[in-house]
Amino acid sequence: MRLAVDVMGGDYAPDAILKGCIDALPLLDPTDELVLVGNKRDIDEILSERAVSDARISIEHASEVIGMDESPVEAVRNKKDSSIVRMALLGSRKAERMCDVVLSAGNTGACVSAATMHMRRLPGVHRPGIAVTMPSFGGAVVLCDAGANPEPRATHLWQYGVMAEVYAKKALGIENPRVAQMNIGSEEGKGTDMVQQVHALLKATPGMNYIGFIEGRDFFDGAADVVVTDGFVGNTVLKLAEGLARSLFHNLAQEFFTRDPDLAMKMEPLFKEVYASKDYHEYGGAPLLGVNGGCMIAHGSSEARTIKSAIKNSKAYINAAVNDAIVQRLAEVEHVAHHLREPA
Amino acid sequence: MRLAVDVMGGDYAPDAILKGCIDALPLLDPTDELVLVGNKRDIDEILSERAVSDARISIEHASEVIGMDESPVEAVRNKKDSSIVRMALLGSRKAERMCDVVLSAGNTGACVSAATMHMRRLPGVHRPGIAVTMPSFGGAVVLCDAGANPEPRATHLWQYGVMAEVYAKKALGIENPRVAQMNIGSEEGKGTDMVQQVHALLKATPGMNYIGFIEGRDFFDGAADVVVTDGFVGNTVLKLAEGLARSLFHNLAQEFFTRDPDLAMKMEPLFKEVYASKDYHEYGGAPLLGVNGGCMIAHGSSEARTIKSAIKNSKAYINAAVNDAIVQRLAEVEHVAHHLREPA
Repeated sequence: MRLAVDVMGGDYAPDAILKGCIDALPLLDPTDELVLVGNKRDIDEILSERAVSDARISIEHASEVIGMDESPVEAVRNKKDSSIVRMALLGSRKAERMCDVVLSAGNTGACVSAATMHMRRLPGVHRPGIAVTMPSFGGAVVLCDAGANPEPRATHLWQYGVMAEVYAKKALGIENPRVAQMNIGSEEGKGTDMVQQVHALLKATPGMNYIGFIEGRDFFDGAADVVVTDGFVGNTVLKLAEGLARSLFHNLAQEFFTRDPDLAMKMEPLFKEVYASKDYHEYGGAPLLGVNGGCMIAHGSSEARTIKSAIKNSKAYINAAVNDAIVQRLAEVEHVAHHLREPA
Repeated sequence: MRLAVDVMGGDYAPDAILKGCIDALPLLDPTDELVLVGNKRDIDEILSERAVSDARISIEHASEVIGMDESPVEAVRNKKDSSIVRMALLGSRKAERMCDVVLSAGNTGACVSAATMHMRRLPGVHRPGIAVTMPSFGGAVVLCDAGANPEPRATHLWQYGVMAEVYAKKALGIENPRVAQMNIGSEEGKGTDMVQQVHALLKATPGMNYIGFIEGRDFFDGAADVVVTDGFVGNTVLKLAEGLARSLFHNLAQEFFTRDPDLAMKMEPLFKEVYASKDYHEYGGAPLLGVNGGCMIAHGSSEARTIKSAIKNSKAYINAAVNDAIVQRLAEVEHVAHHLREPA
């Protein structure tokens, strides 16, 4: 397996990203290769500081960096020598030595844009979507799309359901994933016209375990394994959950300390343990489903351990041959959406 | 003040709703009137069981009930003698003795539909929106729209900002509310075309303290006092937060009990106290801003204390003359959206 990592992307880049790569070396096979994409001088310096010398590591120099707040499309167009663009080019079928997976914790929009532009789409796919695995109290939930496509068409959303189901089966080992669509009510007939159209398509998909609508209040109870929604709602759900969990833990801890410091001291280790078990860092890396190759997007606040997890997940993604299964499955069910004749 | 309460709506109706009304009697002035809308025989029975006799109470008989899962528009059209429709008629300017506020914990869509149909809109208002006050760790946050209008136009969203700002000032006493728009990034240029259009309108609104975009992760930190979003996202945010908070508390408690039962027993009262302080029951009742009258929507799972709070909030809403202030403020800023020429 060849893996390219954008070393310059993320709030704690390049140090945390490089440390994550180094920590992941023991997880790689002897024949695997790790291409570090970014400023060669910086990378060389950090590697020699840490006394890392591994024949599986190579460096792809990129002189530019796309900032976390830059406008994605413009940045990808203008910064052709940025680490994100260079990384995406390594994931392209046109690359001299194509990488099986590319991974970045940088500007999400720019990753999506660069990967879609240079790696292209899998046969039959209309628009790539990000499939984030979120911790819930009833097991992991795959949310797709988590922000690649804020204004999707019905066929895009339907394909997110199909692709994320394949991903949940193949990469996460969920046997017969319950697929649901996010809605503001659980009864038939609720929601927008778009939601209703997608509902009809998912219901008509042969072999899919579609269980209908899911509301926000049931999301964290494990009522579904795969949840389909547009990138605006998906991204909002993701960030809201993260913010609320963080605030709740933080404030609970504070209140306990104010009210009963002795008790709070005793509780602290338990508290930290429970918090860690629900921590997104352990889930590092969400695949951009539908691109023709492997593209993993890591959290902007990725720490070394997040990147290490993401590299582990990247290997699992490739080993599970998710993309082949997606192409096959889409071909199998494409007739379901034929009558819609939407422009892709 | 005349107040009409739909006694038949909500998961614990009619008992919890009636109990809430009875518990609220001490909060009412001697000249206030409370109209209980629902099945007269049931209401009489419960009142006499509880030995309640108060000259301020009257009963408006309604023979039908709209279920929580019924399709709102059809239900309102077909069940003309339902408690929700009867209630909305009491709030109408055409009513023989108009009620200042109507309140229901029943089918939200049906309430919105019945209130909009029978109470009509305030002058200048395009579409009513629900303004829910959510607890956050940095103070209360007013979220509008929380589900009345899942597919709004830009002018609707802009008006939600204007109306919710007035509400936050007048009814909640927030001096110079920071108004933000929900988006999937905090930088200029992010989000959908619709979000950008609304952004331009809110920025151009004279005298508004518009602070730009807010992301899900900052929602519970008190980064804004008023958050504008469409009814689909707003309803999702509301329910997700409720579900996640409930699940987190529940599972934390469970994990603590498994790991250290003695410690958990000691913690329990603290835990419950902290949970209660973030509990939506204390916030009972969200105004449907923009209808020509007072319409408060309570949570479907309202308990007696939720209804009691909602009645208290209803009085505050009327006493603060929120509607007059909305009409005045909309007239003052209507030029901002003139160039859009959207159909209302």
